[in-house]
Amino acid sequence: MEKKIGKQTYQIANPPIITSTGTVVGPFEGLGPLAQDFDEVLTDLRNEQSTFEKAERSMLIKACRLALDHASFSSAEVDLFLSGDLLNQIISSTFSAVSLGVPFIGLYGACSTAAMGLGLGALILDGGFAGSVLTAASSHNSTAERQYRYPTEYGGQRRTYQQWTVTGAGAALLSYTGEGPRVTGVTFGKVFDMGCTDPLNMGAAMAPAAAETIFQHFQDTGWDPNSFDLIVTGDLGIVGLNLCRQELAERGLNLGDNFNDCGIMIYDLKKQDVHAGGSGCAASAVVVYGHLYRRLKKKEINRILLIGTGALHSPTSYMQGENIPCIAHAVRIEV
Amino acid sequence: MEKKIGKQTYQIANPPIITSTGTVVGPFEGLGPLAQDFDEVLTDLRNEQSTFEKAERSMLIKACRLALDHASFSSAEVDLFLSGDLLNQIISSTFSAVSLGVPFIGLYGACSTAAMGLGLGALILDGGFAGSVLTAASSHNSTAERQYRYPTEYGGQRRTYQQWTVTGAGAALLSYTGEGPRVTGVTFGKVFDMGCTDPLNMGAAMAPAAAETIFQHFQDTGWDPNSFDLIVTGDLGIVGLNLCRQELAERGLNLGDNFNDCGIMIYDLKKQDVHAGGSGCAASAVVVYGHLYRRLKKKEINRILLIGTGALHSPTSYMQGENIPCIAHAVRIEV
Repeated sequence: MEKKIGKQTYQIANPPIITSTGTVVGPFEGLGPLAQDFDEVLTDLRNEQSTFEKAERSMLIKACRLALDHASFSSAEVDLFLSGDLLNQIISSTFSAVSLGVPFIGLYGACSTAAMGLGLGALILDGGFAGSVLTAASSHNSTAERQYRYPTEYGGQRRTYQQWTVTGAGAALLSYTGEGPRVTGVTFGKVFDMGCTDPLNMGAAMAPAAAETIFQHFQDTGWDPNSFDLIVTGDLGIVGLNLCRQELAERGLNLGDNFNDCGIMIYDLKKQDVHAGGSGCAASAVVVYGHLYRRLKKKEINRILLIGTGALHSPTSYMQGENIPCIAHAVRIEV
Repeated sequence: MEKKIGKQTYQIANPPIITSTGTVVGPFEGLGPLAQDFDEVLTDLRNEQSTFEKAERSMLIKACRLALDHASFSSAEVDLFLSGDLLNQIISSTFSAVSLGVPFIGLYGACSTAAMGLGLGALILDGGFAGSVLTAASSHNSTAERQYRYPTEYGGQRRTYQQWTVTGAGAALLSYTGEGPRVTGVTFGKVFDMGCTDPLNMGAAMAPAAAETIFQHFQDTGWDPNSFDLIVTGDLGIVGLNLCRQELAERGLNLGDNFNDCGIMIYDLKKQDVHAGGSGCAASAVVVYGHLYRRLKKKEINRILLIGTGALHSPTSYMQGENIPCIAHAVRIEV
């Protein structure tokens, strides 16, 4: 069986199972519509840590431990840990790797990290290299906003098209044990610079990259969008999702009502004042590993396409007058 | 054939060839003993760019283009681009990925990036997913020093145990075409925090992680260190290499005269005022893809073990009083 089909898509011959997951979210995410689907909801943004950075890390470690516990795995039984986050030098992930003691591959893909880790993990397992891969991603509103924009304490007014960085962490254990949905296909994306210069409007910046990867996945596979119960980006928000839908329609690919976004799903947009929706590595990590994983396990849905989207700029590149380059990776998950 | 042997090592069943490489270094590296082995030596640290960040990126893109040209590959023929660097959000790599137009997986492993990319690329090729993988890494003295320590213009006095961030970029094309040395084994490392708190003394911080991965590679494979023509770290410098050698000797593994370090090899330590040697993602990337690749192609050496070492702290983690967590990945390269 050919593993690479079309230009960018990999068929997973022996698809690994998402044996278990672990999710932790912040207090604000605990007020959203998916609260029941997360393993833990923090009562305090600092999670009893001395810094927000340590709070983020504590969530990431907890999500990993929960995923391991749910599968009755010890960390010593895990072959590789693939993780990333938004912080400079991905310190949430690297410091978590110390705690877990599992051989580590550090990833950077901004908000596309969960999909990238899931896809890369599937390749490594299918290649016969590992019996189990733990993959995780995290973000924290107070660490990310300070690093990329303003400290949250400053209380700056937000634009209507801005998204709200999700506080949370999600982890998934990929293996060939247990039961659960499987990762059956992956499309790794290219990086696009479509001339977007506004680091507050991430949805608009990421939409073309998402559209490109979605289009490529269907081109490569020849599948019909209607054969998916859900096609879900993470995280374009309202602005980006509309742009992405429009862009795809112009290219003849009409995604219907089963097209949604993790950043939109995680909050009650009418009651929670997040403007265009959620963002951050945790948005797709917790929605997929918490909410959608449960729905897949119950067979309420049987086939989804996750498109992780990432804005790959830095404050330095932005302040030096450069555009926002973006990427998207697609992962097919099937029961 | 079992692909995973021992605890952390992967045997590559169908080892990919390092079909070609490309290397670019800064003017100062061009004064060192390996100058003849690099494809290009810049005459200007800025490489005619408006910022040092753009200069770094221009080197990375050039190294990738050189690797492709040397193998008569177009970027459209490359399946995946695996790259990382030291800058926040690995902007050198992400912006280079825009220019190359190849599906991209962003890596963060600090100075261990070249080894990590080479190892991960070998797994992906051996798994049958790709016909070719381009992997690269870069660093620039003026971008890294400013981000991690002081702007170079400040002219701060350096400690004797400090290393000098290498300005350069190296790329390797992995495939099953052409001739050349092959990647035959990989040991992905764990992250260790041995209590080092001084971000100026990276060699001491990284030495235990290097020793651990080297020890594990020999434990897993049962090989004899003498069967290697060279065991080379990248980049421990003088302080770290001595500590690593000592640590391994205490554990009964005596590495002889064929144990060296890319950060030591790249400079003339008597004439160039770099104190403990070179560091930065480019140190191992350009020494391995420039100097050692040529020696392997000429069969002056036939088997090397590269141990990429990375200090995974950030200025934020350091300023919040945290230790320097470190990692090392080993890659076996054989003619």
